[in-house]
This record gives sequence, C-alpha cells and structure tokens, in this order.
Amino acid sequence: MRLRNKPWATKVIVENPQIVEPNPQQWKGSWKELFGNNQPIHVEVGTGKGRFVTRMGKAHPEWNVIGVEKYDSVIITGVERLKDQPLNNVRLLKEDVTQLTEFFAPGEIDRIYINFTDPWPKNRHEKRRLTHEGYLKKYSQVLNERGEIHMKTDNQGLFEYSLESLSQFGFKLKNISLDLHNNSMEGNIMTEYEERFNKRGVKIYRLEAEL
Amino acid sequence: MRLRNKPWATKVIVENPQIVEPNPQQWKGSWKELFGNNQPIHVEVGTGKGRFVTRMGKAHPEWNVIGVEKYDSVIITGVERLKDQPLNNVRLLKEDVTQLTEFFAPGEIDRIYINFTDPWPKNRHEKRRLTHEGYLKKYSQVLNERGEIHMKTDNQGLFEYSLESLSQFGFKLKNISLDLHNNSMEGNIMTEYEERFNKRGVKIYRLEAEL
Ligand SMILES: C[S@@+](CC[C@H](N)C(=O)[O-])C[C@H]1O[C@@H](n2cnc3c(N)ncnc32)[C@H](O)[C@@H]1O
Ligand SMILES: C[S@@+](CC[C@H](N)C(=O)[O-])C[C@H]1O[C@@H](n2cnc3c(N)ncnc32)[C@H](O)[C@@H]1O
Repeated sequence: MRLRNKPWATKVIVENPQIVEPNPQQWKGSWKELFGNNQPIHVEVGTGKGRFVTRMGKAHPEWNVIGVEKYDSVIITGVERLKDQPLNNVRLLKEDVTQLTEFFAPGEIDRIYINFTDPWPKNRHEKRRLTHEGYLKKYSQVLNERGEIHMKTDNQGLFEYSLESLSQFGFKLKNISLDLHNNSMEGNIMTEYEERFNKRGVKIYRLEAEL
Repeated sequence: MRLRNKPWATKVIVENPQIVEPNPQQWKGSWKELFGNNQPIHVEVGTGKGRFVTRMGKAHPEWNVIGVEKYDSVIITGVERLKDQPLNNVRLLKEDVTQLTEFFAPGEIDRIYINFTDPWPKNRHEKRRLTHEGYLKKYSQVLNERGEIHMKTDNQGLFEYSLESLSQFGFKLKNISLDLHNNSMEGNIMTEYEERFNKRGVKIYRLEAEL
C-alpha cells in the first residue's frame, strides 16, 4: 500500500468517531452494546481503504463488521466512503492488529477476514505475516468456538505458508480454492486489491479455517 | 491409465514372486523380515508403471519401498523394469489399496506416497479418491507415529479436496507447494505422470501431511 502524506486525514478521522471508534479498548467485551444489537461480529484485519467492510456491511445487515487498519493515509478513504453512505453495522479501527486482544474479549468475534495481506516474503520478516503463529494465537483467543478465519490472497508463497501455519496451529481447513474466480463462489465480495488483481487475470487463492 | 489387453502380463507377474509379492497378507507385521533389515518402509499407493518406486529404491538404499497397483496390464512395466535392474529394497504388490490394512500391521509403515492419483471429479465418485476419509482411515492405521503422507498431483480440484480432507481428518500439513517445478525441491523424484505433465508445462501441486 503506497503511503502518501495526507495531513488532513488525521483530522477527519478524529472528527468522525461514529465511523472510526477512537477508544476500542473501552468496548472490550461489550461491542454488542456499541452496535446496539446481538449480531455476529466479523473483523477484517488489514482493511486498507475499507471497500470490503463497506460492501460486506451493506450486503449483510445481519452482521456487524469491523475493519482494522493502522495507517491514517489509507483508512481515510474508508472514512470518506462511510461518510457518503453511513452504515450502522460498520466500524473502523485505526489500530495495529497486534493489539487485537486489547480490543476484543475471548470469544467475542465470529469471523476474521484476512484479505490480500502483505506477503513479507523474506524469512526474517515471517513474524510480520498476519498468518504467523503469533497472530493466529491472538485470533484464536478472540474467536468464539464456531469462529472462522476466511483468507484471500493473490500471493502463492503467502498462501502456501498460511495453509501450513493454520494447519500446524490446529485449525482445520475447508472451502479451499486455488483459483477463486474460475470456481463458482456465490456471494463473494471483492476487495480493493482483488478487483485490481482480477482485472489483470491474476489467480486468487482462498481458504476457510476453523478451530 | 489406459488399459491394453496384455494376456502375458499375468504370467510374468506370477513367474516373478521376488518382484511382485504374491501373498502380502502373510507378511503383515513382518515386512522387515521379508526385506531382511530394519529399514523404514515407504509405500506408494497407485504405483502405475513403477518408475517412482524404482527410482526411489535406487536413490535411497536406506529405505524399503513398496508399490501397490491393481492392474496387471500396468504393473507389468514395473516388473520388466525390476527384472532389468534388480533392487533388493523394492517390492510390488498387485493389489487394491482398499486392502492396505490386510497387508500391513498398525504402525508398520513410515511413509505413504500418493502420486498423480485418479481425480474422480464427480461428487458421486468421491469415495474412490485415494485421499477420501475412508482411505485416510486406513493410512492412519498402518502409519507409525511419525508417519507421513506425501502427495503430488497436477489436478487442482483433487489437490483442493485433499488439503481439506487431510486437514479435516486431523493431519497437519507442511511443505506445501502450488508449483513444485518452479520452487526448489531438492531430491524430488519424478513419477511417470509427472514427467509427462512437466514436459507440457503443467503445474504440479505437492503436500506433506503428518498426524
Ligand atoms: C495489501 S493491503 C490490502 C487491503 C485490503 N484488505 C484489500 O484486500 O484491498 C494490506 C493493508 O493491511 C494493513 N496492515 C498490515 N499490517 C497491519 C497491522 N499489523 N495492523 C493494521 N493494519 C495492517 C496495511 O497498512 C495495508 O493497508
Ligand atoms: C494416474 S496413475 C499414476 C501412476 C503413478 N503413480 C505416476 O505418478 O506416474 C494412477 C494409478 O493408480 C492405480 N490405482 C488407482 N486406484 C487404485 C487402487 N484402489 N488400488 C490400486 N491401484 C490403484 C491405477 O490403476 C493407476 O495405475
């Protein structure tokens, strides 16, 4: 994700606390109160510009959807998107995914999406991959018993790594596709990156994992 | 595998009991006696024309290698191969893989290879796939504690299915490759089918699974 300097971004984020929750720690264990309903909570880690969470929230009013993205300059596009079309069941967190267990209580989340996350191909950066054991540990803490991880990526190496990492951690794999857009998957919601790759004819890999 | 009528095949098989063991039930629990050593036992299920087991036995004299193939007309090529270059640590079984637990005692096998097995793409034939739960149950019985399954295939659908089936059964996955011949895998031994597909530039998928 290219980072442009957007000094006004921080200001817009702060001015829209109904879109970007400024104090997620405070809601740990009580997100359903924030949303004012008892719906399942789905979290996308590394949300980028928020296209996926916005589309997801719109297509699935029966879910609450939270997108976590650490950069002001990126998340700002999601804020603009949600200013244009407010969605009560969608929130953004301008936070680092490493903090996930600070924001969510054990079992509070129903599903985690990992879409087109940075592959960090070098061995010495392995720990930064959002499917590294360290992150999986956090996910497994906040997911409930029937919780699932849904992952999509264009990156072969990251996908191979993630299959192994999830499996070795104890997740069971299902609904694997090695070419998503040439299989039939009903209800697939495209992310920003997915649209870009798909237009170029790049293959998309997908998996689901459950504990 | 195309089947030509080879009436002489049965005769050659029967005449070479030192290559095709005629009575594998008899060795259940005592294959190491048959081989006259204490080496690990590796079994390829659906061996076809025996190129892989022959190469494997030659490259790894420290292993005992057994190939299981049900058709006379196919296994015969393996018999001819082993008549030309006898290998003490290689045996063929002209048997059906469904019988595996009749031939091997619990924990007697160290590794199972599944190479380019028939994909049986139709749902109603799922049970025939050599990575169907029914087969995995048998493999898990004859494999020892550190036992592994190594699988290669060119077939995307079968590979997706096998990842899921192994994972759901409780196997853990490792050393996954979605493009074997463009990654580096030292010591890869090509099978008959693999050479054919590789020449045509077809991608080869590979996985290892452990209990
Ligand atoms: C390659 S983009 C993909 C964006 C989006 N998911 C999509 O599919 O279009 C990955 C995003 O994840 C964010 N990201 C990576 N690691 C993160 C972390 N530890 N915490 C929060 N965001 C992170 C990056 O800043 C970047 O915006
Ligand atoms: C497609 S060929 C691949 C041969 C070889 N493994 C290779 O990679 O070149 C699959 C072989 O598996 C054999 N086979 C399939 N199911 C079998 C079973 N249940 N028992 C024994 N052999 C089987 C078939 O007869 C066929 O020869």
